[in-house]
Amino acid sequence: MKLITFTREGMKQRVGAIVNNQVVDLHTAYKSLLASEGKIRAQQIAEAFVPADMTGFLQGGKESVELAKDAVEYALENKNDSGYKFLYGINEVKVEAPVPAPGKIICVGHNYREHILEMKRELPPHPVVFAKFANTIIGPQDDIPFHPISEQLDYEAEFTFVIGKRARNVSQEEALDYVAGYSIVNDVTYRDIQRRTIQWLQGKTVDGSAPMGPWLVTSDELKDPSGLEVVLTVNGEERQRSNTENLVFSVQYLVEFLSGLMTLEPGDVILTGTPGGVGVARNPQSFLKDGDIVKIEIDQIGILENRVASVKEVIEVKG
Amino acid sequence: MKLITFTREGMKQRVGAIVNNQVVDLHTAYKSLLASEGKIRAQQIAEAFVPADMTGFLQGGKESVELAKDAVEYALENKNDSGYKFLYGINEVKVEAPVPAPGKIICVGHNYREHILEMKRELPPHPVVFAKFANTIIGPQDDIPFHPISEQLDYEAEFTFVIGKRARNVSQEEALDYVAGYSIVNDVTYRDIQRRTIQWLQGKTVDGSAPMGPWLVTSDELKDPSGLEVVLTVNGEERQRSNTENLVFSVQYLVEFLSGLMTLEPGDVILTGTPGGVGVARNPQSFLKDGDIVKIEIDQIGILENRVASVKEVIEVKG
Repeated sequence: MKLITFTREGMKQRVGAIVNNQVVDLHTAYKSLLASEGKIRAQQIAEAFVPADMTGFLQGGKESVELAKDAVEYALENKNDSGYKFLYGINEVKVEAPVPAPGKIICVGHNYREHILEMKRELPPHPVVFAKFANTIIGPQDDIPFHPISEQLDYEAEFTFVIGKRARNVSQEEALDYVAGYSIVNDVTYRDIQRRTIQWLQGKTVDGSAPMGPWLVTSDELKDPSGLEVVLTVNGEERQRSNTENLVFSVQYLVEFLSGLMTLEPGDVILTGTPGGVGVARNPQSFLKDGDIVKIEIDQIGILENRVASVKEVIEVKG
Repeated sequence: MKLITFTREGMKQRVGAIVNNQVVDLHTAYKSLLASEGKIRAQQIAEAFVPADMTGFLQGGKESVELAKDAVEYALENKNDSGYKFLYGINEVKVEAPVPAPGKIICVGHNYREHILEMKRELPPHPVVFAKFANTIIGPQDDIPFHPISEQLDYEAEFTFVIGKRARNVSQEEALDYVAGYSIVNDVTYRDIQRRTIQWLQGKTVDGSAPMGPWLVTSDELKDPSGLEVVLTVNGEERQRSNTENLVFSVQYLVEFLSGLMTLEPGDVILTGTPGGVGVARNPQSFLKDGDIVKIEIDQIGILENRVASVKEVIEVKG
């Protein structure tokens, strides 16, 4: 399945599945399915097994994914005839980041083999990991806000996985069983701010600096996370290209490594690193500017495309 | 007020206030107060203004703090005679970390002036900031788990503040208005893991590595965060001592700096850095071991004391 989070005017965020340019509201479709079977507490059962928010949904694990598939089948057969509205055209909704509020966003640095070797560095013995906070997450239809705090706004294409089951000390062999699915994140970076101290966080966690999407491809559909081509363009010009087969630390390795340090929870988002070709490393350097279109395409997932939009004023939030 | 989060057998986490070794369940006391005034929807009003979880409570801002004070007064006058149980002896409850699930934990490095100067370093032009995730938070009555992944478990006494109002581009002058209160965190660090790559996160965010407490002293009570003595002992032996007047970057500066990068939310936890004297910097080096008692005392806040307890086995979490 291609899982999304979507909104409509007057509605809270909801989990959906995209099928042929239609969006199925999974919670409502499942509730309708249960009601059609005569279940008295359809509402409560649907809230328990196919809740409307993505983190809650992922906490349900494979059981919820299977029930969601039943809901999709029911939705496509019955359309909106049952009195519930659960089927929308793709243009009737706004697609948000698939996981709008992850508990953790863990990023891996220096993880593409050919790029490390071309820089004549040694392959690292341990992954370099750093954080972004959830304030960075925006969706595939949002603009990347360019805050007037730096002139060095840079892109980083990242193949991303999302945890689907609580994980602690999980081995590489079992790792993929803990992955809910795969997506794309642009690890947008204020490069000078990242580098002005020895820790990168401050240039990495600026509001809106993690566009994510366009959806989450579930791991029952995308079974092998290696061998996927990753390409980033700016205004149509290719800037980054590699393949997940070049990852020094694979998805499986990262699940083992990270779950050996901390408990990973459903909805945690892990960015696997970026290939060579970022703006700061080009000759001459080339940073993003207002109006630029940044497009990331990854095999078997799709395309994440966002426009850069200058934030004109410093707005003080009151409240 | 001294705000805590507490649990009792069979109860979810609840916000409380500590008064003379008694714990007032703020939500229940406020509900009882409303009911005594004949309010029909006491339950719903109490959920809206004095919810039972700390992050929800802090979202209510100063209004909720004032209502909570009314609830405390009511509770002490009426005891548990109204049919609601909202007053407990301190020994009847377990005190948890005041903010058990912060959205962000932001840590500042290299922030005590005298320690930087004694190391013959220059004062930094910008704060060094790094992250811990919420899996690190444990309470004042919990043991510090010593996971068998390193032999270099180290302590760091940290004066800590908690955000009470959404903050974006807030000036130093207004900064303290955005602080809900102050607490103590031990920024427990697996030193060799912190240092094996250039980014510290992996040695900082191990499960259980942020004991927090014993409570949150609200900022209407602790008005000036400078001039507070910070002392850490291990088994009674003094290891760290400084004063928040030595902070290079004050609470006010940090609110301005951080809110210039990201939106701070109620419940976000900010650790202001640690004085000299950590185990790795001693001669000879001295790390924590099973059974050690680490005690941090900060003026006008109190004492956070935790025992170190080796985690004997590597437990694989299933399910």
